[in-house]
Formats: sequence, C-alpha cells, structure tokens
Amino acid sequence: MIKAYAALEAGGKLKAYEYDPGILADHDVEIAVDYCGICHSDLSMLNNEWGITKYPFVPGHEVAGTISALGKHVSKFKIGDRVGLGWHSSYCNDCNTCLEGDQNLCSSAQGTLIGRHGGFADKVRAQATSVVALPDALSSEKAGPLFCGGVTVYNPMVQFDLKPTAKVAVIGIGGLGHMALKFLNAWGCEVTAFTSSETKRTEALELGAHKTLNSRDSDALASAARSFDLVLSTVNVKLDWGRYVRTLKSKGRLHFLGAVIEPVEVSVPALMGGQRSISSSPVGSPAVISQMLEFAVRHNIEPEVEVFDFVNVNAAIERLEKGSPRYRVVLKN
Amino acid sequence: MIKAYAALEAGGKLKAYEYDPGILADHDVEIAVDYCGICHSDLSMLNNEWGITKYPFVPGHEVAGTISALGKHVSKFKIGDRVGLGWHSSYCNDCNTCLEGDQNLCSSAQGTLIGRHGGFADKVRAQATSVVALPDALSSEKAGPLFCGGVTVYNPMVQFDLKPTAKVAVIGIGGLGHMALKFLNAWGCEVTAFTSSETKRTEALELGAHKTLNSRDSDALASAARSFDLVLSTVNVKLDWGRYVRTLKSKGRLHFLGAVIEPVEVSVPALMGGQRSISSSPVGSPAVISQMLEFAVRHNIEPEVEVFDFVNVNAAIERLEKGSPRYRVVLKN
Repeated sequence: MIKAYAALEAGGKLKAYEYDPGILADHDVEIAVDYCGICHSDLSMLNNEWGITKYPFVPGHEVAGTISALGKHVSKFKIGDRVGLGWHSSYCNDCNTCLEGDQNLCSSAQGTLIGRHGGFADKVRAQATSVVALPDALSSEKAGPLFCGGVTVYNPMVQFDLKPTAKVAVIGIGGLGHMALKFLNAWGCEVTAFTSSETKRTEALELGAHKTLNSRDSDALASAARSFDLVLSTVNVKLDWGRYVRTLKSKGRLHFLGAVIEPVEVSVPALMGGQRSISSSPVGSPAVISQMLEFAVRHNIEPEVEVFDFVNVNAAIERLEKGSPRYRVVLKN
Repeated sequence: MIKAYAALEAGGKLKAYEYDPGILADHDVEIAVDYCGICHSDLSMLNNEWGITKYPFVPGHEVAGTISALGKHVSKFKIGDRVGLGWHSSYCNDCNTCLEGDQNLCSSAQGTLIGRHGGFADKVRAQATSVVALPDALSSEKAGPLFCGGVTVYNPMVQFDLKPTAKVAVIGIGGLGHMALKFLNAWGCEVTAFTSSETKRTEALELGAHKTLNSRDSDALASAARSFDLVLSTVNVKLDWGRYVRTLKSKGRLHFLGAVIEPVEVSVPALMGGQRSISSSPVGSPAVISQMLEFAVRHNIEPEVEVFDFVNVNAAIERLEKGSPRYRVVLKN
C-alpha cells in the first residue's frame, strides 16, 4: 500500500489516504518520496479549475526521492538511486515527437497527477523514461522544484537557442520567476525583473536580475520599448500584453509559461513591424531536465525553498495560496 | 519633373500629376519605371485606412525598371541596370538591426509611398541600398510583384529556417498566396492550400499545392489537427484563428503576412501544449530579396500577372478592389 495525502472533493483539505498501486509495470519504477514541491498547478488541479480532476486526488509532481523498486524491463536505474520526477509520468515513446526528443510535447504523455496519483505520498510510480537521476552535488531538498517550475523556465532558453548576449525580462518574481532570474543570469544574459513591489525589487537583484522595471509604471514600461529579445511571463493573470509586446526588440518573443486562461489579445501590426513572436511551452523533456540539473550544479543554482513536514501539508498549501512563500514550498517525508 | 499618377484625396481616382523631385541625393538612385505592381497596401494607403496617407498620394511599391540616374556616392549600379524596388525606399544603415542585415525591421526605414512618392510614375527615387538588381533571366514584367508580395511570403521561409521536409499550409490564395504556393513547392515542402472555392482549388493544385482543404468545412479543418509545421496567413480579415492554431504540429507556427487590423485572440493553453508560436513579419531585407530572385529564376517561379497600361490605372485598381485578378495586377509604362 502507498500512504498518500488526498483531497476527496474539489478544494477539500488533504487527508491521509492509502491505495494499492498493484503490480509494478515492466517499464516503471517506484520512487520512495523524500521531498515533493508544491506548484500552483497542484492547487489548480486540487480545485478542479481545469475541469479534469478525479477524486480522491493526490497532488505532487515535483518529487525528489530514491528508487525503491524496478519494473523488470528497467535497466537505467538501480535500487537506491537518487532521482526526480516532474509533471509527466509517462510518454508513448513511439510517436515522432517522442522520437525527436520532445517527449514533453507528446500528445499521449500522462501527467503525474492526471488520472493517477501524485507525489504527496511515501511512494510514487512512473515510467522510467520520465524519471531523471539527480547529480550527487544536488540536495534532494532543493531538487524537486527544478523538475516542474525549474525546467519550465529553463526549457525556452534551450528551445529558442537563447544567446548569452540576449536581454531578457521576467514577468512575475515568484516560484517560477525567481528560478528564471538565476538561470538567465548564469546563462550570461542581461536580466530584467518586472516587479511592482519594493521588497521584491531588492530580492530580484539578489536573485540575479541586473535591473528591475516597475510594471505598474506605464512610463517605465514605455521607456523600455524595443529593449528585450525575450520576455518570459510566469504569471497566470490577465495583463495588458500589448504593453509588453512593445518592450520587445526586433525578432523578440513574448513567451508564456503561466497558464493564462483568458484569451490573449494580440495586435498583428505590433508583431509585424518587428517580426515578433508570441508563444508558450510546457515543462521540458527528460534530456532537457538532465542538462538543466548539470547546469544548475555547475552554477550553484538552487530554488529558494520553505520546507514543511508532510503532516503539515494543509498549512503548506495555505501558505502557497496566500502567495507569500519565498519562493517555493517543499514537503518533506 | 516626374510624371506620376496621384490621388488628391482619400479614395480618389488617380490623375496625372507632375512633381519636381529636386536634386538627386548622394546615396540615391533614380529608376525609370518599366512596370509597377499593385498591392493591397497601395489600396489601403490610397483610402487612408491606416490614417497616415498624405495627399497628393502616388501609389506603387513593386517597381521593375532601369537605373536612369545615380547619386554621387552610389557605386553598386550603373546607368541602364535593370533593378527592382519594393516596400522600403531607405534604411538608416546605422542601427544594429540594419547592421545585422535586417534592414526591413529598421525602425527608421522609410516606405516607398509613405511621406514620399511611389512608383506609379515614369520615374521613382530610392536609396541605392533598398534597390536590388534583377537577374538577367527574370522578365521586368514579372519582377515587380516579387519585391513586395513575393518577398513577404518568401521571407518567413528564410527567417524561420524552414526545412524542405516541413508541411506548410497557406490561408488565402490570392496575390500573396499564389506566390507562396510556388515558393513552398520549390522549397521542397508539402504544401496545402486552404480555400473555399472549387475554381481556386483546381488553380491552387496547378500553382504548387499538393493538397487543398476547404476552410469553410469545420470537419475538414478539425481533421487536419496537428498537421502543419507552418501556417502562413495572407488574408487581412478576421478568421477563427483558434481553428488554425489547432492544425499546427508541435513547435508549429501561425504566421501573419496580412495586416489583420482587429486584434487576434490567442489561447495560451492551445499554444502551450504544443510549444506553438504566433508571429508576423514585414517584407524582407535587400539580401533576402536578392536571394529570392536567384531562387525564383532557378525554379522558374514567376507571379501570375494581368498587365494594364498605366493610362488605365483606375481600371486596374477597380479590378483589384473587386478581388478578381489572377493573381497580381501590373502596370506598364
């Protein structure tokens, strides 16, 4: 039996919940969960905001743990290996998207907490392909958030061949944004944080931003016209996106990492004049995750975390719901 | 004096109009206009749809002609050279965008018919940098439309490193779209034309499309889900863009070449799942125009044109306004 924490209804408190995971599939592994981060998408799923949640619902898709059992066709791990698991728990591994190394875009990829139980538990299972080994130098406490929030902000740097000479701005300095500042700084870029809070401003500079811009000051935003090669938005609220498009240089890109539900209104002439793009991407492939972990270790990049024991999971969720953590919440077994 | 055709007010008929162009600037050339295409943007400017037209207004920015005078610092041409001139008549040549070879994105670039007089005339002037030599094998009659419509559809193939293995669809089989079909076919791509007319369907296949899709048939559009690496929209009307986004493969791009004025509504989750992009671009740089002409000659690509004498300019405009030409209208001196 796996001992987990589950909500029995939309928005419900998490309660101790046991389930029998059955026989371990041939290509799967079982991970003893040491730590699991909490992501905003855990809350969205918990509250059934996307209309796809099944209850009992076990959140958790930023797992750092240890291999505790191996399916009979798994050769890439051995018992006791330190590993991580993110948003996806399996891929088809047969489609061209998978074969091209873009497993995170596989239309048959399964979410770790969609139609299966996630990492708020003592154990979690996943297809070995979706599980990535942790480098020795990376602490398990800090590793979890890299597997969803971390790779979400790192992946576009790889996908769009971001140059170290690029000027990049980040909207939203929270769980994702604070990791973006660290990665972009280490990547060699000039990093600007959009922020409206004086406290966050100081913290953003400490986290890796070279500059900050007050996003509530329309003059400041206007004066940043044609400044950035890339603007990464990590928020999931509606903003006046046209104002951010105007901050893009020629060939610049406004890239959405937060799942903004309301349609975004785009002016074609504003894109046309500067050959600008608008895009979005989800997490990253296993190979990109692995590359990111290596890069993170080389540059001493770790998420800033607040650690709660698993028994305090509801307090941890409440902390995240209030938007107050600095910057990511991690649960500990 | 330059003998031109000008409108004296928004939407007015063109009338014979003479103006004194003054002394030829040091870096400019004068072109004796042999042919000049008519583009939809000539009509938009004529009717002051963008609110920037000054009258008397001389349209024309798809010029094929012969060098008739050289500014004293111009060494790249000699009198009598066959050349073309498109949307832009000058660039700053100093900004990083220009220095990187993206003169068409220069924020100081001047339009051939914005704040100056265009190619509906016996002569037109432009900075030598913006003028491109015609290959011997390219007829002047067919060359003009390549300089605006042609490079507009060709440029994204270069900008986004389009592979010959790509599957590309074109929305709008008209002045721009029919050239897109020819270029994409020669580029090696699988080419699909979105069209709702049976006549256009047959013509699209003759022009280079391998397949057609009825854009008014929502089942046909739905069955094309995840089919295309690139969708080029050449129309300037509002469509249900979400339906076209769904036809994009992972990493696919919906690229706007028509100046859609109404904001485009974009669903971030629809972009996110497949790491899709939405973008737009204007014409192309002189180097891209030159490369395009060479490619066009090698592959026998020419626009389909209907030729009118310049004295019949108002009849030619009427023909274009009715949307009936097959496929581009060219005026002849």
